[in-house]
Amino acid sequence: MSDLFDDHFHDECGVVGVYGHPEASTITHLCLHALQHRGQESAGIVSFDGRNTVAHRAMGLVGDIFKGPVLDELKGHTAIGHVRYSTTGSSMLKNAQPFAIDYSRGALAVAHNGNLVNAGTLRYELENVGSIFQSTMDTEVIAHLIAKGEGNAEERVINALARVKGAYSLVFLTEDRIIAARDPRGWRPLILGKLDGAHVIASETCALDLIEGEYVRDIQPGEILVIDKHGLRSIFPFPKAAGAMCVFEYIYFARPDSRIFGEDCYPVRLAFGARLAQEHPVDADVVIAVPDSGSPATVGYAREAGIPMDIGLVRSHYMGRTFIEPAQTIRHFGVKLKLNPNTPVIAGKRVVLVDDSIVRGTTMRKIVTMIRKAGAKEIHVRISSPPVMWPCYYGIDTPTREELVASHQSVAETAKFIGADSLGYLSMEGLRTCLPRAADEFCYACFNGDYPDPPEEKTPVRQLHLFNATEDKGA
Amino acid sequence: MSDLFDDHFHDECGVVGVYGHPEASTITHLCLHALQHRGQESAGIVSFDGRNTVAHRAMGLVGDIFKGPVLDELKGHTAIGHVRYSTTGSSMLKNAQPFAIDYSRGALAVAHNGNLVNAGTLRYELENVGSIFQSTMDTEVIAHLIAKGEGNAEERVINALARVKGAYSLVFLTEDRIIAARDPRGWRPLILGKLDGAHVIASETCALDLIEGEYVRDIQPGEILVIDKHGLRSIFPFPKAAGAMCVFEYIYFARPDSRIFGEDCYPVRLAFGARLAQEHPVDADVVIAVPDSGSPATVGYAREAGIPMDIGLVRSHYMGRTFIEPAQTIRHFGVKLKLNPNTPVIAGKRVVLVDDSIVRGTTMRKIVTMIRKAGAKEIHVRISSPPVMWPCYYGIDTPTREELVASHQSVAETAKFIGADSLGYLSMEGLRTCLPRAADEFCYACFNGDYPDPPEEKTPVRQLHLFNATEDKGA
Amino acid sequence: MSDLFDDHFHDECGVVGVYGHPEASTITHLCLHALQHRGQESAGIVSFDGRNTVAHRAMGLVGDIFKGPVLDELKGHTAIGHVRYSTTGSSMLKNAQPFAIDYSRGALAVAHNGNLVNAGTLRYELENVGSIFQSTMDTEVIAHLIAKGEGNAEERVINALARVKGAYSLVFLTEDRIIAARDPRGWRPLILGKLDGAHVIASETCALDLIEGEYVRDIQPGEILVIDKHGLRSIFPFPKAAGAMCVFEYIYFARPDSRIFGEDCYPVRLAFGARLAQEHPVDADVVIAVPDSGSPATVGYAREAGIPMDIGLVRSHYMGRTFIEPAQTIRHFGVKLKLNPNTPVIAGKRVVLVDDSIVRGTTMRKIVTMIRKAGAKEIHVRISSPPVMWPCYYGIDTPTREELVASHQSVAETAKFIGADSLGYLSMEGLRTCLPRAADEFCYACFNGDYPDPPEEKTPVRQLHLFNATEDKGA
Amino acid sequence: MSDLFDDHFHDECGVVGVYGHPEASTITHLCLHALQHRGQESAGIVSFDGRNTVAHRAMGLVGDIFKGPVLDELKGHTAIGHVRYSTTGSSMLKNAQPFAIDYSRGALAVAHNGNLVNAGTLRYELENVGSIFQSTMDTEVIAHLIAKGEGNAEERVINALARVKGAYSLVFLTEDRIIAARDPRGWRPLILGKLDGAHVIASETCALDLIEGEYVRDIQPGEILVIDKHGLRSIFPFPKAAGAMCVFEYIYFARPDSRIFGEDCYPVRLAFGARLAQEHPVDADVVIAVPDSGSPATVGYAREAGIPMDIGLVRSHYMGRTFIEPAQTIRHFGVKLKLNPNTPVIAGKRVVLVDDSIVRGTTMRKIVTMIRKAGAKEIHVRISSPPVMWPCYYGIDTPTREELVASHQSVAETAKFIGADSLGYLSMEGLRTCLPRAADEFCYACFNGDYPDPPEEKTPVRQLHLFNATEDKGA
Repeated sequence: MSDLFDDHFHDECGVVGVYGHPEASTITHLCLHALQHRGQESAGIVSFDGRNTVAHRAMGLVGDIFKGPVLDELKGHTAIGHVRYSTTGSSMLKNAQPFAIDYSRGALAVAHNGNLVNAGTLRYELENVGSIFQSTMDTEVIAHLIAKGEGNAEERVINALARVKGAYSLVFLTEDRIIAARDPRGWRPLILGKLDGAHVIASETCALDLIEGEYVRDIQPGEILVIDKHGLRSIFPFPKAAGAMCVFEYIYFARPDSRIFGEDCYPVRLAFGARLAQEHPVDADVVIAVPDSGSPATVGYAREAGIPMDIGLVRSHYMGRTFIEPAQTIRHFGVKLKLNPNTPVIAGKRVVLVDDSIVRGTTMRKIVTMIRKAGAKEIHVRISSPPVMWPCYYGIDTPTREELVASHQSVAETAKFIGADSLGYLSMEGLRTCLPRAADEFCYACFNGDYPDPPEEKTPVRQLHLFNATEDKGA
Repeated sequence: MSDLFDDHFHDECGVVGVYGHPEASTITHLCLHALQHRGQESAGIVSFDGRNTVAHRAMGLVGDIFKGPVLDELKGHTAIGHVRYSTTGSSMLKNAQPFAIDYSRGALAVAHNGNLVNAGTLRYELENVGSIFQSTMDTEVIAHLIAKGEGNAEERVINALARVKGAYSLVFLTEDRIIAARDPRGWRPLILGKLDGAHVIASETCALDLIEGEYVRDIQPGEILVIDKHGLRSIFPFPKAAGAMCVFEYIYFARPDSRIFGEDCYPVRLAFGARLAQEHPVDADVVIAVPDSGSPATVGYAREAGIPMDIGLVRSHYMGRTFIEPAQTIRHFGVKLKLNPNTPVIAGKRVVLVDDSIVRGTTMRKIVTMIRKAGAKEIHVRISSPPVMWPCYYGIDTPTREELVASHQSVAETAKFIGADSLGYLSMEGLRTCLPRAADEFCYACFNGDYPDPPEEKTPVRQLHLFNATEDKGA
Repeated sequence: MSDLFDDHFHDECGVVGVYGHPEASTITHLCLHALQHRGQESAGIVSFDGRNTVAHRAMGLVGDIFKGPVLDELKGHTAIGHVRYSTTGSSMLKNAQPFAIDYSRGALAVAHNGNLVNAGTLRYELENVGSIFQSTMDTEVIAHLIAKGEGNAEERVINALARVKGAYSLVFLTEDRIIAARDPRGWRPLILGKLDGAHVIASETCALDLIEGEYVRDIQPGEILVIDKHGLRSIFPFPKAAGAMCVFEYIYFARPDSRIFGEDCYPVRLAFGARLAQEHPVDADVVIAVPDSGSPATVGYAREAGIPMDIGLVRSHYMGRTFIEPAQTIRHFGVKLKLNPNTPVIAGKRVVLVDDSIVRGTTMRKIVTMIRKAGAKEIHVRISSPPVMWPCYYGIDTPTREELVASHQSVAETAKFIGADSLGYLSMEGLRTCLPRAADEFCYACFNGDYPDPPEEKTPVRQLHLFNATEDKGA
Repeated sequence: MSDLFDDHFHDECGVVGVYGHPEASTITHLCLHALQHRGQESAGIVSFDGRNTVAHRAMGLVGDIFKGPVLDELKGHTAIGHVRYSTTGSSMLKNAQPFAIDYSRGALAVAHNGNLVNAGTLRYELENVGSIFQSTMDTEVIAHLIAKGEGNAEERVINALARVKGAYSLVFLTEDRIIAARDPRGWRPLILGKLDGAHVIASETCALDLIEGEYVRDIQPGEILVIDKHGLRSIFPFPKAAGAMCVFEYIYFARPDSRIFGEDCYPVRLAFGARLAQEHPVDADVVIAVPDSGSPATVGYAREAGIPMDIGLVRSHYMGRTFIEPAQTIRHFGVKLKLNPNTPVIAGKRVVLVDDSIVRGTTMRKIVTMIRKAGAKEIHVRISSPPVMWPCYYGIDTPTREELVASHQSVAETAKFIGADSLGYLSMEGLRTCLPRAADEFCYACFNGDYPDPPEEKTPVRQLHLFNATEDKGA
């Protein structure tokens, strides 16, 4: 939830689309709440009521943004929604989604999970022929390509997507349809569900659970799914590409109770934990999780190792907004504001501490110190994924390569840095073995630097000069 | 200030530009305050600090919007500003100016006073080739024409203006210059001044008075004035056109202490009043003004007529924001919230009541009723302009023709409608005679329907479908 | 309206009470708007609906505070209201009125115009027997005396007022009546009116004008007027005292269109101006007012002197809240933000400049400088009251004696200080002559230091230790 | 966290005091964050800087209320703080604590955890002799008793507490000391700690963990502890009473990582779970917790029963403020917004579901339904405390007796109501056996209706008439 106390990669977005439900925006709202773990900074909904396309976007949590009167204005049987985690400092609202435009064919809105690797080049080209951009989002490039295109909305979407490269799970809203699209490599998840005859698109199945909807199937890599008054229609206009589904969805991003890429997520995490116990066994008294990210792998580890699992760290549920963007004076207390060791479980014990990943290592270092002070005799850190050594360019917020501790330290050095008696990562082989689908369908770029669609190095970097402005304010 | 209690035409905008002053945004801020009578709904400033173009726009009065911290962020030696009166209901902030874009040549901002008569046609053409509009303002058309143009900023501005028709007094800010432009007919005023070696552009001279600057000259009709590090450069790229300066600037819009179209405004209003006394004399005890719009003409009338002038209506200075957008329950009290008769001046007297114009007539009717109740024996209404019978398409907010009382009632009928014992308007001939410049240089369209640049009747009306949204909100 | 640009004494309060009207709080609201000139910092209304006593108080203008939903909650046939001008910096809301308590006899609210001179002594006594104060207002002392009293509400009010000294025009609301009270010397005005069978109490008659009510009579000095379901009942429980009506109500505080102390205010101000012309004639070309405070006396002066009156200073109507509490960087521009000289009226002329009073002299100095720069040949300042030399302790916000320019400078020195060619004040004799009632019924303490009820010098000053807190904030 | 989705008793408050630390308010702020589980509705801090007593209170979470600038104003070496959970609808800020007054001996502030049973009687007496109350809190009665007392602050506190009955853990701040007090029965916890030579008072030890302070000892029942420049001084002025420590602190209220009543809380909860497994064994496949309230007992149950523990319910961490006070339309989704079943763990399994208590039973009913829909074969609910059948009068927010499901239903009926295959509560005997201190030192009133200090039945109920007002708002 916070950069500071939570040393994780962060998924940048979750998307939702609802077609044919009398309370489309309420259903979208609930789905976004279920997808809140995919982005907590801003959220938005755009609905169409048969005549008008209405938008509401704001900074903050879904539950705070979409209060009664706001939902009442978001009328209609069709709606799309978006939650976003973002890293840009100023002008954040400008970059909130869904992105909505009014162009020659009417209104169009789009919600995007993923990241394009050739957005800079395309933007340069578009600006050179007179396009004016409103935001710094790669998503806006898609909107301009559509506005400059020809034919009906569907043809324009296909032609626009033919020009972009990289990761996208998209939901478009036009005045008469919803169009869902997933890039040919299938980086990010996107599913289709049903509710009372209405069609629902969402990033994860946990959204369907909340609304008591029914899971139908995954949107396929490369699929463009049109939903309108005639029903569903699938198009596969692009050449087939090698799969590059994000393996980190199984490791950390997805909610453990979601079905991802067609398979339940939770058993995969259990399997990572069990395999980790096989690869890195240790003689210990108790296995504890870094809550909640490490909890599923902890169950797997403890069972396989035959060591009792216990609650070794107590998590505060009341972080508020301010601690998320903390003042300097509070930073000293760091992770302690969120986690406290449960001394009776730890004191005098040999502890196995399980988490899903280490990014910078600074938070893990604080946690190990805390547990040591609480009296642990030994601390053995176990990580249910391989060392992350490369930034992601496909829709995940990652630090630079230099900040990734595993990119410049050996495992032994990292163990010393975080203060652990031992440190064990899940091996690449172990990771591939536990996956519920063919291992070569996945992207492992953050572990091995092997980028399926490399970012365009020659992207002309025209710095934005405008609008590091103070946020404009309404009445 | 308010639609409800103030039955006037409203100027829609005031503009400012400052080049070469270390506190450019503070100077702009003060000038905007002096021009506040030209627009009270929203205000904005865009400044350039040598690297970044920073914008701040908000709903409300200049003095409330640009507080210390905001001005501190608007750094740089160059700035432009805008105040706006607008009539659109929703999404008002979206239409606040200066309008600022980031395009292929860098950042550009523009502040506009006036109104284009072919904006709809141009927008239709632009959208058809893929331009995406962010607002409903005609000013955005100019920005798109510039973005799609060729050459440097100056050439692009000239080429864009070559395509538009109608009224514009414009100030552009680019990353290295300020460009001021006034349409060939010279509808709206625009002046050039100096302050400590810096150059200042403003709608009226009263802006210079406040900052203790020096008036240099008017920007000429059809002139494009470029201000950059090399100094000032004037271009007259367009064919000369017959003058159409707005005569209502002398009647009501401009501050009485401003110099307009090169001449002091106040003596012109005195002359209107004096001529009105000649054209419509009456035997009376006292001359009173509708404050403050009727005050200058009242002085002229009273002097010419030799009747004592007195304070017959007391004005409240504390209207607040709420009364400006009043609830239904308050409407009943109408103009009484703003004006109260001063009984000792009125009771038992034959009163001449002077104002500058009558638009719908409803407010004047309430004022006459109020004065009658306060005991006036006779009430003779005198108006220091001819009857307004036609809407304006050149940057003034006017009601439809049907709402203009003089468009469908004779003077006698109007006198009866407002409850006056007599009613006299200044004649067209009288108006022309009192003007301090050649009478055929002016636009009289609101009086006689003779439109120099008629609005394009064939404008394709594509209704906007998007964004009758709830206003998006920042963090 | 602002400390900075408006060098006047300020009335601290206006009060209203309504009994027996189905829309009591709306009527109160309108009356407060008409009394806004008596206090612009905070406002409040307390109503009683037969079961509950409901309060709303806030900082700001009446028109902004009492929006629809708020008035809807202030139900009932009885209400009282208050506007306040105050000087205390922090914790201002705490001191907003009406002051409301819940004590052993039920709910009680009170609105107060005036100032007690023995509040410190009484507060000291009350705290010593265990009373806990919520505010720093002298008005709270009255509430505590009532809470500790005996008998019914009426007896408690009388007994409480028997103990206080100084100036008070009060309106109490209890669960079954309104009680109005005016101190025996009658310092501040208080009037009784009627509207559709309901009874209305207000500080000035202009409140009745707005609601189209009828003036009945003044509340008499020393009168306690009880309004309940049996009608009106007057009590005069205190010994008769020499009158001390505030003469400054005629000079400046009251709205010119009000009837004060039973007489129209406007003709008195005209008379001050005429007498001033007799006492201080001058050979000049034009007479101009400092708007709007000097306007009535200007009319009187110009007529008596036979010199034309004109509009020499143009006033901005758009000061906003921020300019009222200006940042340091804006202070330099001082009064120019509010007033601009009208050059055609002034240039080359011998000008008589009329205002009602001079307090510190700093603002007048800036105005004279402005007029001089606009080209006036001579500037003769005329003031329609005697020099103010003493602070007021009876409900007016005045600077310390040292700050009053007339307390330490001769008229000649002041003329030099403000830069005028000549300066003339109305004489005490002139002032007394023009009053519409017996001159010895008035308080002239601010002119001659003769305080009818001197402030208690021995007041034990126990400094308040609590709550120079940040303002607590609601959800 | 929310009434709706969280069917628990709620502790109403947590208190903190810091004496002798240069950053007293920052330390208080951190301690309050650690105590946030004891109250999430409002929070406040009062500090003393040697001259002034400064207060800040607001609605919301600690982390959102005490941002940098606010803490900067709360200067001084001494501070007290409070978090509050409250049930009153309107006027909530008025009831935020610490309660602070300015009385004859200077400033005094008090933070209170607990509830007095004779506050109504005392208030009636105080109002009858003229005291004016500002809030509806029982805590204000203590403040008035102190204000009306005699002697120094310490004597006044002792005399005031001699008159009250019921539960109180109090921290007072005066201008030269901190006074902590715990009622003679010791209902609520209160501890003493140290940090860098400063003294810290807090409700629970987890506050000391966060600031890395040292636990010294519990404040004893009946103890009044004075902390001033001379150090610590203990007074036991009241007769010894039978112990009535709240057993629910061990069951649910306290953080599991706190030491409560001198003993670690977590092992007690483990023991409750183990004993529950002995008393209500069942043949099952998996043991799951209602997170997080049921988690510790789940560990104990699973271990004792030898059944694997797993994560059967996934909890959302992003509830926001709105869901806490949900709109009607959202209520339908109830607990689903917070909890989702983890199907792979549940489907086809015989599930033991453990929680700490059942209050109304409605939430448990929804959880059981959810788990059933996820495919559980059998659901056996186990509760680690006896059935709650009586409301609490000692500082806990409980529903009425009628709303407590166990007060009118047998265990079998409740099992049927919630839809479980079986339901087992911990027995009273089991509960008493697991406690780490003598069982007769505790209060069990919510289980058996045996109230140590019964609420005063004859409390004169004088209804409050005032201030069900709209909340007053600052500038």
